[in-house]
Amino acid sequence: MTFYDKLNTAWQKNNSLLCVGLDPEVSKFPKHIQKLDNCIFEFNKQIIDATAEFACSFKPQFAHYAAVGAEDQLQQTIAYIKKNYPDLIVILDSKRGDIGSTAKMYAQESFERYSADAVTVNPYLGKDSLDPFLEYKDKGTIVLCRTSNASAKDFQDIKADGKTVYEKVAEEAVSSWNYNQNVLLVIGATYPEELGKIRKIAPQIPFLVPGIGAQGGDVQAVLKAGLDTNKCGLLINSSRGIIYASNGEDFADVARSEAKKLCEQINQFRN
Amino acid sequence: MTFYDKLNTAWQKNNSLLCVGLDPEVSKFPKHIQKLDNCIFEFNKQIIDATAEFACSFKPQFAHYAAVGAEDQLQQTIAYIKKNYPDLIVILDSKRGDIGSTAKMYAQESFERYSADAVTVNPYLGKDSLDPFLEYKDKGTIVLCRTSNASAKDFQDIKADGKTVYEKVAEEAVSSWNYNQNVLLVIGATYPEELGKIRKIAPQIPFLVPGIGAQGGDVQAVLKAGLDTNKCGLLINSSRGIIYASNGEDFADVARSEAKKLCEQINQFRN
Repeated sequence: MTFYDKLNTAWQKNNSLLCVGLDPEVSKFPKHIQKLDNCIFEFNKQIIDATAEFACSFKPQFAHYAAVGAEDQLQQTIAYIKKNYPDLIVILDSKRGDIGSTAKMYAQESFERYSADAVTVNPYLGKDSLDPFLEYKDKGTIVLCRTSNASAKDFQDIKADGKTVYEKVAEEAVSSWNYNQNVLLVIGATYPEELGKIRKIAPQIPFLVPGIGAQGGDVQAVLKAGLDTNKCGLLINSSRGIIYASNGEDFADVARSEAKKLCEQINQFRN
Repeated sequence: MTFYDKLNTAWQKNNSLLCVGLDPEVSKFPKHIQKLDNCIFEFNKQIIDATAEFACSFKPQFAHYAAVGAEDQLQQTIAYIKKNYPDLIVILDSKRGDIGSTAKMYAQESFERYSADAVTVNPYLGKDSLDPFLEYKDKGTIVLCRTSNASAKDFQDIKADGKTVYEKVAEEAVSSWNYNQNVLLVIGATYPEELGKIRKIAPQIPFLVPGIGAQGGDVQAVLKAGLDTNKCGLLINSSRGIIYASNGEDFADVARSEAKKLCEQINQFRN
């Protein structure tokens, strides 16, 4: 089974393209959760149980755990998802990027220590920095292409011979990195025009699209530009818009409503 | 005190440009160390005590700790250096790179959780992904420019308007990122020609130069191309060549000899 097969199963499971970002910040938690031991895991668990029915994937963002020394709770979170929702995809969003011998250790971290299904990586160091991830055939390697932030243009838009750096990343993904059918690209929801260009270069590569909600990306524009010919091919991430929709005792219920709403909104535009 | 002041103190302390890379891999440790509890920290401690006299800096490489869940020993290692060798610089080599709100958490991780003096970062996401690090005035932000690996060329050498991506990174470092005098650049020892070009663009920016030893970089060529007008401006890193020079009971003594030799070799070429 290739990673793409696994991803297809995840999309079909709940008929959803929604990826729920798990970016825990204790100060944003409801008061009754903040008081608990292991409160990051407890918060995540309730969010996961509330939203899983409307999602294809969960994406824990590494910095939110690393900043506060909560690696154990990151591990518990991933294990909880894999045990209870085995058809969904867990993306470790850690944007790794280093020379080959070190990349090998990051692949070990992502896929063996944490047992994530996929990991985000940075292409700046080129192919030999990606290979140690790509060699895990049943795991996904999600390469930054055109990111969602304002300064994305600084280097990603540098244009040589009529082609931007991000377009070159997409071309390499198609022509040289996808030998195990496990490459995805990150493209910010805030740039639907660029998303459309990249879809033309890489018609069959799935995209992870962050930037909906708090960052201002528009769902309809993303779908119009990014869907593949099967009206699929996207993992649309929302983090803050779902998990912090309420900071009251009803936070999980409200997160569930927001996930349901976004999943349905996406499906409405797909059809 | 700016970070550059701190770095000058570190260079002068032992009259050394040598940075010792702490890339622990338990299978490469001497047998008697492998048996110890907390063996990564125990290994590092002996290496640190043996080599500190010939170094300006230590650089723990994050993946080597993250792959095996040894964040606590990474923290102990950094605390040990800062307590016992307070004039030397600790570089956390974790090559972070993410959007601003997340970069802020990585800066917190690097400078508050681990209390590193400097951290390596990836420029692919542009200026707003670097600012949260740069804003820590007394901490160093070490930006990847031209890396030491073979595939470095894939994206770093893309040339627009007569200028490569890595040259543009160096220009931005000079013109727009260095508002707190705390920017450094990473340039691989394996590419002395590129190193020379970058020194011309950024005459006053310190460079972290990995790739000596195991990766094949030549010390003399690096110094010729990379020294600044004060015959300084470089942190020349060696990891495997020092810490795994012996895997016998004499490993710390042999590491000490190798560090001494490399420090002296560098100084010989400087004068």
